[in-house]
Amino acid sequence: MTFGIDDLPVRDELRGKSPYGAPQLDVPVRLNTNENPYPLPEPLVERIAERVREAARGLNRYPDRDAVELRTRLAEYLTKTSGHAVGVENVWAANGSNEVIQQLLQTFGGPGRTALGFEPSYSMHALIARGTGTGWISGPRGEDFTIDLAAAERAIAEHRPDVVFVTTPNNPTGNAVPAGTVLALYEAAQAAKPSMVIVDEAYIEFSHGDSLLPLLAGRPHLVVSRTMSKAFGAAGLRLGYLAAHPAVVDAVQLVRLPYHLSAVTQATALAALEHTDTLLGYVEQLKAERDRLVAELRAIGYEVTESDANFVQFGRFEDAHAAWRRILDRGVLVRDNGVPGWLRVTAGTPAENDAFLDAVRELKKEQST
Amino acid sequence: MTFGIDDLPVRDELRGKSPYGAPQLDVPVRLNTNENPYPLPEPLVERIAERVREAARGLNRYPDRDAVELRTRLAEYLTKTSGHAVGVENVWAANGSNEVIQQLLQTFGGPGRTALGFEPSYSMHALIARGTGTGWISGPRGEDFTIDLAAAERAIAEHRPDVVFVTTPNNPTGNAVPAGTVLALYEAAQAAKPSMVIVDEAYIEFSHGDSLLPLLAGRPHLVVSRTMSKAFGAAGLRLGYLAAHPAVVDAVQLVRLPYHLSAVTQATALAALEHTDTLLGYVEQLKAERDRLVAELRAIGYEVTESDANFVQFGRFEDAHAAWRRILDRGVLVRDNGVPGWLRVTAGTPAENDAFLDAVRELKKEQST
Repeated sequence: MTFGIDDLPVRDELRGKSPYGAPQLDVPVRLNTNENPYPLPEPLVERIAERVREAARGLNRYPDRDAVELRTRLAEYLTKTSGHAVGVENVWAANGSNEVIQQLLQTFGGPGRTALGFEPSYSMHALIARGTGTGWISGPRGEDFTIDLAAAERAIAEHRPDVVFVTTPNNPTGNAVPAGTVLALYEAAQAAKPSMVIVDEAYIEFSHGDSLLPLLAGRPHLVVSRTMSKAFGAAGLRLGYLAAHPAVVDAVQLVRLPYHLSAVTQATALAALEHTDTLLGYVEQLKAERDRLVAELRAIGYEVTESDANFVQFGRFEDAHAAWRRILDRGVLVRDNGVPGWLRVTAGTPAENDAFLDAVRELKKEQST
Repeated sequence: MTFGIDDLPVRDELRGKSPYGAPQLDVPVRLNTNENPYPLPEPLVERIAERVREAARGLNRYPDRDAVELRTRLAEYLTKTSGHAVGVENVWAANGSNEVIQQLLQTFGGPGRTALGFEPSYSMHALIARGTGTGWISGPRGEDFTIDLAAAERAIAEHRPDVVFVTTPNNPTGNAVPAGTVLALYEAAQAAKPSMVIVDEAYIEFSHGDSLLPLLAGRPHLVVSRTMSKAFGAAGLRLGYLAAHPAVVDAVQLVRLPYHLSAVTQATALAALEHTDTLLGYVEQLKAERDRLVAELRAIGYEVTESDANFVQFGRFEDAHAAWRRILDRGVLVRDNGVPGWLRVTAGTPAENDAFLDAVRELKKEQST
């Protein structure tokens, strides 16, 4: 018998669990983790090397603990793209939006407190809740994956959660939540507790609609979280951030690990922010490809959930996992997020999307015969 | 009235608290955060730029979630410098040893559990305990800052902590804990619970003695944590790691945030590990300077705690904070860690140490007159 995890004095709730993460398989077309398929442009690669070289010359010193320059540039980006004025005092950054959310739950959730999300949604919300000792409440979502406001309000009133997550555009379903719904959920959460409402906008740059950043005005319990992983094509960078009332930015600093954001991470993110226009150009291409995926999947005969993200949820399958495997057999890796009857495909390059569409076209023929 | 932290629904234990971190003051000689004073050599700076350029070309993809190449190189470094065979399956890495410790406490501590450290010691242990909902027990340390084994064993038997921290060399006092004491503490912790024992070796490369890595053999509840911040001169990189039984490495993956370690962090750390010999050469210079500080401080008339680290604790002062301020007035920033009567100075370059010694020589004269 090998000595394993369960022979260690791990916390009871971790026993029998597996680490989170999609299978990292080596296949020709990987459309499973919502990565941006476009490598960074070479001038940006050079700028990163230049900025990191400079940072490396001072690497024996701790980084700027408050990441002031980076937060300033992120605030400028948010102001420019949303029209809502955001300052450095409204912005906080961490190693991926996962760490942002972890810090928020350490501050506003934790032992004896609860968080609620409308599922299916980004499954890390529930996992980070577990990791921070925050109780998790699975809130309702309709058959069509929209949030039924009346049902959602009832859930908030009943459970009085300390934190409410609203993911828009939602992952893995792809659909956005209307601003009016988010506002009503915020009001319901204030009436019930008051609780913090975290709007996860990881995919907002791909949306047909606008960011909810303007809702921050006058709502100190609202937080908008963002990432550079998707629109900035920088999943490997691990840079997430939030915008909120300055008091929220002050509060998360009570739990953040000091110097959590390395000098090389700050330098790389700053370089990417200098190239925002080019990167947002790729986003436009991806939006067009996403729309093409939706149209072609429907033409083939699949059901598709409305998408405002860089991915599309399609179905329905009697056995989604078997369908996932058949698509993989054709060299295309999509994601089975465990939503019964549905799979998720990331919008890739035109050639990758063609390969995917060929695969699911064949699958449809097989299933029709 | 400004809307502030206490107007938000933060956790009760965070109310009235301040963020951790030494004052970042702009003075000529900064000897307050145990940074390595030697910038990375230029060939290493170039190698970092080269490796990061390569990583940036794939930055649109998530990084290697398991950091296999980096962990392999870290294992080789540990094996080479300790003589104890360490493999990739024994090593885990994260954003600074703070994140390593946070993951360990999320796995083995957390709500309803406790951790014990012998204070004064690295104050982040207690703060990360608070951040993870782990109860904190302040264990005893003698007047001379050594660990009194009998008293320590009594504390472990009485409190039955789930996690025991042993920092060696200890921060901020500088002294190392003998291997025999660590072994006895491990036995006491096993008899009491059994609990995990975390040996924090952040400063071990500066020690007159050896690493405790060989103690890992046959002790699956023992963990040794390390950092590249000090000996590798890379505080800005935020790279901490641990060595332990493979089951511990498996267990922390249940709480680690997926893709926590960015591609640029992995690339930079790999570059630094290629230059280990040069960097360990700087360590030898710093050890000599540390020994000189100890000798000269004693010659001036100060009390000094034995140091196996890259810093020296000196005193005693009736009012340590006033003394800190007087030294700062002379352009030298040291650290007041809140240990009554004592201050801590980091070993800098010979010129920085001379400036410090001049300052405290004058201070001594003032106080004698």
